[in-house]
Amino acid sequence: MSQVAIIGTGHTQFGELWHQSWVDLVEKAGLEALEDAGIRKKRIQKFFMGNMSLGMFEGQEHSASKVFSEIFNGQSNSSLLGRRIEGACASGGLALEASFNDILAGIQRGEDRILMAGGFEKMTDKTTEETTRILAGASDIDKEVGFTFPALYGMMKDRYLHETDAREEDFDLIAVKNHKNAAHNPKAQYSFEVSLDKVKNSFGVAEPTKLLNASGIADGAAAVILTTREMAEDLGADYILLEEVVGRNDTVGLFERRDPLTLESTKKAAEGVYESTEVKPEDIDIAEVHDCFSIAEALALEDLGFYPKKEGWKWIRKSLSDCEDKDAPVPYQLPGGEKVWVNSSGGLKAKGHPVGATGIAQAVEITDQLRGRIEGREVSGAEVGLSHNVGGSGGTAVVSLYKKP
Amino acid sequence: MSQVAIIGTGHTQFGELWHQSWVDLVEKAGLEALEDAGIRKKRIQKFFMGNMSLGMFEGQEHSASKVFSEIFNGQSNSSLLGRRIEGACASGGLALEASFNDILAGIQRGEDRILMAGGFEKMTDKTTEETTRILAGASDIDKEVGFTFPALYGMMKDRYLHETDAREEDFDLIAVKNHKNAAHNPKAQYSFEVSLDKVKNSFGVAEPTKLLNASGIADGAAAVILTTREMAEDLGADYILLEEVVGRNDTVGLFERRDPLTLESTKKAAEGVYESTEVKPEDIDIAEVHDCFSIAEALALEDLGFYPKKEGWKWIRKSLSDCEDKDAPVPYQLPGGEKVWVNSSGGLKAKGHPVGATGIAQAVEITDQLRGRIEGREVSGAEVGLSHNVGGSGGTAVVSLYKKP
Repeated sequence: MSQVAIIGTGHTQFGELWHQSWVDLVEKAGLEALEDAGIRKKRIQKFFMGNMSLGMFEGQEHSASKVFSEIFNGQSNSSLLGRRIEGACASGGLALEASFNDILAGIQRGEDRILMAGGFEKMTDKTTEETTRILAGASDIDKEVGFTFPALYGMMKDRYLHETDAREEDFDLIAVKNHKNAAHNPKAQYSFEVSLDKVKNSFGVAEPTKLLNASGIADGAAAVILTTREMAEDLGADYILLEEVVGRNDTVGLFERRDPLTLESTKKAAEGVYESTEVKPEDIDIAEVHDCFSIAEALALEDLGFYPKKEGWKWIRKSLSDCEDKDAPVPYQLPGGEKVWVNSSGGLKAKGHPVGATGIAQAVEITDQLRGRIEGREVSGAEVGLSHNVGGSGGTAVVSLYKKP
Repeated sequence: MSQVAIIGTGHTQFGELWHQSWVDLVEKAGLEALEDAGIRKKRIQKFFMGNMSLGMFEGQEHSASKVFSEIFNGQSNSSLLGRRIEGACASGGLALEASFNDILAGIQRGEDRILMAGGFEKMTDKTTEETTRILAGASDIDKEVGFTFPALYGMMKDRYLHETDAREEDFDLIAVKNHKNAAHNPKAQYSFEVSLDKVKNSFGVAEPTKLLNASGIADGAAAVILTTREMAEDLGADYILLEEVVGRNDTVGLFERRDPLTLESTKKAAEGVYESTEVKPEDIDIAEVHDCFSIAEALALEDLGFYPKKEGWKWIRKSLSDCEDKDAPVPYQLPGGEKVWVNSSGGLKAKGHPVGATGIAQAVEITDQLRGRIEGREVSGAEVGLSHNVGGSGGTAVVSLYKKP
């Protein structure tokens, strides 16, 4: 049983928030998480912030010091340390991974540390052209030959369609499901349903990636408060257990991979989590996976072990083909008869994907589902949750496992 | 006694290295550290890389994944995780702090982890104007009113001169001493001596900051390999102990501080180190301190507890006034009669300051001094070392303590 607990969550609106600065967003998420945890700022000893490109988006580095000034009241809090952590779109997941290990380090030293893990991105102050250029900065050599992220994931989808009997519609169903969930999430960027027809007929942004297969550009922030299980009990907190966090790398370039349809980083991270927790994929009730594009959710379902490789499409079709007519959230059926509810938040597709925030926003959704705090898209009785956050086209992946105490 | 050991070091040439990419530099430092530690790449489980602004300098984020591809051979190493860590010029120190805690987390889980902590920056591919703009990105509101870093530290120096009987020459001696040390460091950017007259007569870049009071713009990388003390023994490594690493924040803006002559972040971090290790400033033999400007070394000597506040100048004058005629390295004399050798590497001033690399380069110098690996500027018999790495004008500071086993 894990010794790390999440005792508070905070999450801003995701979307084009032109009237709010990145500091406003971090403050809102951070204070909400503190209030939820029922602790004062002064109790926090460290904070880890996932952020990809504040430098390129806003011309500002050293964001931790700025957060110390603005949110933690500068000098009045005298023993705090913040680190910014970056691994492209997996920055939030890496901040969670850093926090998990820092709590364990504290236990090793006989300390019950209380930390904040946050993530944020302010992406909409630039033109689309500039934003595309900045995002391409995570894909290295791929960008030199002209690949954007929609094109990279488009290639994966093309290959999947080539190697299997899947149809484009199988992936479009994923977008329909995620929008259906987001319609019950008031903090989602696209809090509305879309019909299968609408997804099918949306225009190609990098064919076969269509507009409604892709997550958008967003601003937003999220935060969680972590401590030891013992401290969570002492505080009388409404907590859940963070059982394990494992991150793994793969090559930065898609072209360097043995198999473009396997994210080795996801696979190895998931294997690490399953091995140390003795949890199997079929034991998981809810998962937030990194659906930056519809194909990414399909590949994640396979790489996380829910479905055999290149067979996910059959189960997606079977599980979601009539999802338009069902109430949210609609689960995936697993080969053994179990069910797993994926991206109840709306996922990156519909909740929004302010890149550095995503890994922490996933932790917020899982925590609040396990605490029974979600309405309208709740997964009743969920006891085991997983989150999956990817950087680039798979150069980094972080997989985390959560349990009800 | 600490349970964390440093078993290998690597350090590139610092300077204007136009013919080497940031990947070349990280590879060179990383492989050198691995070779020194006598271990193969595959033994590394995680790597933490301090870097301030690869995005703004080179248009690239997600550097950990790139390093995984290029240095750790991509897929052939299957269970590795890298994180980039940023806190302006303290990024390297924060990577060391992260590594220290991660080793402790491993011990808590019964694992002897082996990690690489690296730091790098590629700063000379941009024009001076662009570089100035990028560096100002760490100083937030200060930059909006037109402050550059030389101007911020110039203000501190002006205030120090106003509040004490110090003369500009007292600070110029610091530059003379550091250049004298760098003349024996072939990896230093400015590996030559400068006379006191030359420093005194150098032109003002932001008066009273003169050119030869300031560190330059440089490319470079450094790396250390860390593990548990037990593993270091098992490997038969030539190791030193990393006793403690403490980081603290202060406000990002200089104007928000109670006292512009005290870096609260340094003071609190040092207090944390002294308290947990029961080491006193006078027990320290060698220190690498963050002398981005001459005044910064003077303030560091006070904030780290070597001298009372606003009295450091007297001891600097007393210790260094005839340093031009002495052999390197020339120590500072402490009030109790002890000596401490500061910036034997040449410091940021003369060894160079590729910002993300600095905190790790300091760890390399201290480790190699304690292992008796330094020639020409060696501090014979040194047993206790300290490093001090600052981000911005003091928004982050990391203080680390090292001991011979």
